[in-house]
Amino acid sequence: MPYQQSSLQKPGCVLITSPSNPQIKQLRKLQQRKYRNDTGLFFLEGPRHVLQAIDLKEPIEYIVLAPSLLADPNGMKERILKHVSEERILEVSEETFKSFSSKDGPKGIAAVLTQRKLSISEIVTSGWCCVALSSVANPGNLGTILRTCDAVGVSTVILLDHSVDPYDPITLRASMGAFFNVKLITASFEELLVWKQINQLPMIGTSDHADLDYHHIRYPEKCILLMGSEREGLNEEHEKQCDQMVSIPMRGQMDSLNLAVAASIVLYEMYNQIRDVS
Amino acid sequence: MPYQQSSLQKPGCVLITSPSNPQIKQLRKLQQRKYRNDTGLFFLEGPRHVLQAIDLKEPIEYIVLAPSLLADPNGMKERILKHVSEERILEVSEETFKSFSSKDGPKGIAAVLTQRKLSISEIVTSGWCCVALSSVANPGNLGTILRTCDAVGVSTVILLDHSVDPYDPITLRASMGAFFNVKLITASFEELLVWKQINQLPMIGTSDHADLDYHHIRYPEKCILLMGSEREGLNEEHEKQCDQMVSIPMRGQMDSLNLAVAASIVLYEMYNQIRDVS
Repeated sequence: MPYQQSSLQKPGCVLITSPSNPQIKQLRKLQQRKYRNDTGLFFLEGPRHVLQAIDLKEPIEYIVLAPSLLADPNGMKERILKHVSEERILEVSEETFKSFSSKDGPKGIAAVLTQRKLSISEIVTSGWCCVALSSVANPGNLGTILRTCDAVGVSTVILLDHSVDPYDPITLRASMGAFFNVKLITASFEELLVWKQINQLPMIGTSDHADLDYHHIRYPEKCILLMGSEREGLNEEHEKQCDQMVSIPMRGQMDSLNLAVAASIVLYEMYNQIRDVS
Repeated sequence: MPYQQSSLQKPGCVLITSPSNPQIKQLRKLQQRKYRNDTGLFFLEGPRHVLQAIDLKEPIEYIVLAPSLLADPNGMKERILKHVSEERILEVSEETFKSFSSKDGPKGIAAVLTQRKLSISEIVTSGWCCVALSSVANPGNLGTILRTCDAVGVSTVILLDHSVDPYDPITLRASMGAFFNVKLITASFEELLVWKQINQLPMIGTSDHADLDYHHIRYPEKCILLMGSEREGLNEEHEKQCDQMVSIPMRGQMDSLNLAVAASIVLYEMYNQIRDVS
């Protein structure tokens, strides 16, 4: 069914058709980390993620709809209007939407949101484990780790110095929405150590040269799991501050696993130990 | 140190400088699945992967070097010449190399290889488990699964109908070289069932709605692990043919894990059971 423009738009309301419109330019610029940092905003695309953000009352700046790309434009707009005022909805042409979309088959809905800024000192250690990642470089890996964190009930992920931007569109996509279920904190390693001290949390690090087998230890009831970058792993200073270092045994010819896979294997081992006890 | 062209090149040997040279065009076309299928060739990039292919005596058609991009062009060429004849080495300019490279910082070495075609009937079930994947869509996931397979000593991966091309450059990159350590077979589901019958192998499938917890069963000594696509998982027919169906418990708000993560979690559970016994 072709989209009936008149049914959605108020008289005089203009459908943006120019990719050079300033707001559309902003949407494209939000692909850049620097621009996201400067504005404190980020870009989210696709019905699943945008509706999830609405349901969770995330701080939405505005929503962009391309009615001609939406399966049910009237239904979608009605649903959005229950939570978001009309001034915050921008309607654009298909061509305009495609000018900022990062999807092969864009579904005609996107949003701009305010980044959530949490300080590590605000974090209460309510969960059984929190994950700290140093210098993660691949946004897809970070998103995949968030997805596993959500699955095992890890509610806090701390990104240490030089990590990839969690608001990277690839991270958001790979997290499949887990992004909104996990508290993401950016902190320095020193801040993590202070927090660890205050909360008296043991820290477990991973390394391919650690003697302890990740499957042969009993994990503490509450702890920090610290993992390093894809290329370098943890550095000496990190390792020194860990209470235990574990490795995942490998019997093949490779010397490492994908970072998100390694994190998930250790997290599921921890989670299984909790489940086995209870 | 600038590259000394005279030290490597025979008199009269031409450095290819044109991106429209027919061989250079072929390199670019090898990004396309159809062209790879038609020619039975594939493209590999980067010193780590190309040198690994040489060491493993993989069937190399030709090697492409951009001396000005190589850290040590003379050393690299000497090393290659021990295994590959000079006629099979193509030297190109930096600009030409960048015209087909899929890397952000190309390192100046690539190769074209012949695809290995193995039929499922040739596969001897020597390992403890083989992985069968139906309709995997994401080449990065496939590469990551190959990496985990190598880590736990799974030597055979069977790609069933409609799976992503294992010779996709993204698969090769994500596998980090594990691609060469694992036998990759393409087969139909019917062929898998015949092979399963002949080899009397039990088949374990995964699904988010299976009652059996993946961590609460004892896996057979030898088996097939069957997993479905990222979006749909296994279909009814697949599930019917499995001897057991298992699920990975999740306590968060998401309903699934990344496919490569899920495969890795089950494979490490199996591998841990073997290690715990021996």
